Amino acid sequence: MAAVTVHTSTATTTPYLLGTRRRAFAFRVSCSTTAADRTVVIGVAADSGCGKSTITRRLTSVLGGRAPFGGRAEPPRGGNPDSNTLISDAATVICLDDYHSLDRAGRKAKGVTALDPSATDFDLLYEQVKAIKEGRAVEKPVYNHVTGLLDPPELITAPKILIIKGLHTMYDERVRGLLDFSIYLDISNEVKFAWKIQRDMAERGHSLESIRASIEARKPDFDAYIDPQKQYADAVIEVLPTQLIPDDNEGKVLRVKLIMKEGVAHFSPVYLFDEGSTVSWIPCGRKLSCSYPGIKFDCHPEIYFGNEVTVLEMDGQFDRLDELLYVETHLSNLSTKFYGEVTQQMLKHADLPGGNNGTGLFQTIVGLKTRDLYERIVATSYRSQGLEV
Amino acid sequence: MAAVTVHTSTATTTPYLLGTRRRAFAFRVSCSTTAADRTVVIGVAADSGCGKSTITRRLTSVLGGRAPFGGRAEPPRGGNPDSNTLISDAATVICLDDYHSLDRAGRKAKGVTALDPSATDFDLLYEQVKAIKEGRAVEKPVYNHVTGLLDPPELITAPKILIIKGLHTMYDERVRGLLDFSIYLDISNEVKFAWKIQRDMAERGHSLESIRASIEARKPDFDAYIDPQKQYADAVIEVLPTQLIPDDNEGKVLRVKLIMKEGVAHFSPVYLFDEGSTVSWIPCGRKLSCSYPGIKFDCHPEIYFGNEVTVLEMDGQFDRLDELLYVETHLSNLSTKFYGEVTQQMLKHADLPGGNNGTGLFQTIVGLKTRDLYERIVATSYRSQGLEV
Repeated sequence: MAAVTVHTSTATTTPYLLGTRRRAFAFRVSCSTTAADRTVVIGVAADSGCGKSTITRRLTSVLGGRAPFGGRAEPPRGGNPDSNTLISDAATVICLDDYHSLDRAGRKAKGVTALDPSATDFDLLYEQVKAIKEGRAVEKPVYNHVTGLLDPPELITAPKILIIKGLHTMYDERVRGLLDFSIYLDISNEVKFAWKIQRDMAERGHSLESIRASIEARKPDFDAYIDPQKQYADAVIEVLPTQLIPDDNEGKVLRVKLIMKEGVAHFSPVYLFDEGSTVSWIPCGRKLSCSYPGIKFDCHPEIYFGNEVTVLEMDGQFDRLDELLYVETHLSNLSTKFYGEVTQQMLKHADLPGGNNGTGLFQTIVGLKTRDLYERIVATSYRSQGLEV
Repeated sequence: MAAVTVHTSTATTTPYLLGTRRRAFAFRVSCSTTAADRTVVIGVAADSGCGKSTITRRLTSVLGGRAPFGGRAEPPRGGNPDSNTLISDAATVICLDDYHSLDRAGRKAKGVTALDPSATDFDLLYEQVKAIKEGRAVEKPVYNHVTGLLDPPELITAPKILIIKGLHTMYDERVRGLLDFSIYLDISNEVKFAWKIQRDMAERGHSLESIRASIEARKPDFDAYIDPQKQYADAVIEVLPTQLIPDDNEGKVLRVKLIMKEGVAHFSPVYLFDEGSTVSWIPCGRKLSCSYPGIKFDCHPEIYFGNEVTVLEMDGQFDRLDELLYVETHLSNLSTKFYGEVTQQMLKHADLPGGNNGTGLFQTIVGLKTRDLYERIVATSYRSQGLEV
């Protein structure tokens, strides 16, 4: 079992900190690795409000849900209450915002948004991720989302699995080279708009025009710096409007694609019925009845940014558990450890966004594939050291 | 093993013969049944030139291809050389034309075509099929297609399987009640037209107008008497133009549907991947490459003339054996006796019409399902008599 340790240390010189103000102590946050392990690094990238935190919760849940792992991901106990880090027995989740080279005031002064990579210190990110991957501890900066300032660093020791989530996780070529697996959440403009209306108009009372304006204002930086990262991702979860309801623009029923790169070490795509061919499947029929507009799956090979990929698509949403279990039974290469594990995970997190549709399903599947990838890497590592697996 | 016997007898009084001229002898044609068997009766109906003979050859090949059956279907040896009957160890195939109540001259005199049921003696057909089913021999009339006359009858003893093929096999309610399984070949007008052009224009030098006129002339009787039979069939093979080539009207690439009724005793439909749901499948992809326009399968439940059916559809054609074997591997409930039996049968009859597309494939599959049906009926019959199966 990995041991979670959090300890306080003073940090008088912090050469990586470019912010203007900090507190005088740092936290040490980690779950230690065993001798033969090396830290497996997973990258999650997406725009703000696109589900990075949700997928992270699903990932850590799957990674920590069964032996050899236990426990759930939580903020570091006894550390900075505004830390962005989450820790579980298996994984440490760090947030790229912590590598802001400019704090809120600094960004404002220079006229750059958080979407602009010039506001992120990729040199430090690269060095620290590399150090962790090599088993060394690092003093990671902490960006305080509440104050908009850079707080004193927290010490991160090498975990079994390091998950890095952020706007630019796959932006820097050197950092990309350190990722064992990368995930991009690609929310289409239509759905992003529908979600923003839902949240900012219905819940916060913003006007439709102000929502549209805020999306438009972000778009140039998003298109230039965030969106292009999807070409590097090993798995992309793309969220689109449904095609089951003609001219739907409510954004409640979603069509979600899981785009899985072929030829990635220790990763083999999930598929439907027959690997490598084109299959569409409406499970609703004689054995399973679904309410309107039903559920439709599709699976096919494709070329995505020049890479061979397998695309699994789900349109529609689940009404009940039996629909999900029925679907799970028919998907191949899920890397589950027992019958119904996908369904169990979905039930466990039914309250998370996308819990009844393809976003939740595919995030859960990506979690299972990540766990499998981790175990394969560890097994390879043990074998290369002549150890029993 | 069943014994094939052909013997000559005189037939001075033949109460069922309504023709104007006949020869003075009859033939006896059969393969005898064993004590516990009863004759299983299979009906095949379709318009002229729509593949009744082809499917019959495929059926008898499958029925006679493996133990407990041997041999192939051939015209009765030593009998009327113009006999329409085919016999194998397992099956006797009789042609409904033999039950013409009017010969060619008689039909002409009354102004009716062979499509008109009034030219067929359904009373006699019913009585004789019933007699055969009960294990009794009958003196079946023989219609001579060469002379257009009614020849002396041939004696048919009860075979293991009686296949009745004709224009009106499912027209008469009493006869329908005797069929253990019924098959209708439904060739769409577009394909019928393309086939006729192919044969009558390219090979026989007819004009496009005369072909169109001959189809139009037959249409009222076809619509009134032949086409409605498909509602009664347990399996319908529907042949349509391809949808893979936009605006195709060559009729060379075909889309073929196998429509299988649910709830038929001793028969369970073939399906693709997941029974009772809607699946489409393009097998051409990473594991199988196909030439243009490729191959597409579809399988779904449907209501067909008020009956629940499973529809399996194939669009396109096979270039090579590996495509067919690949497809066979992915179809479920085929009732094959060994791996690759469908492919073996298709190879054996590669020269028959439709040998590389869905007509040949589905005729072969119907053959396998018919063999399975026969074996299940016999097993039930043995069991009901307290015999070992």
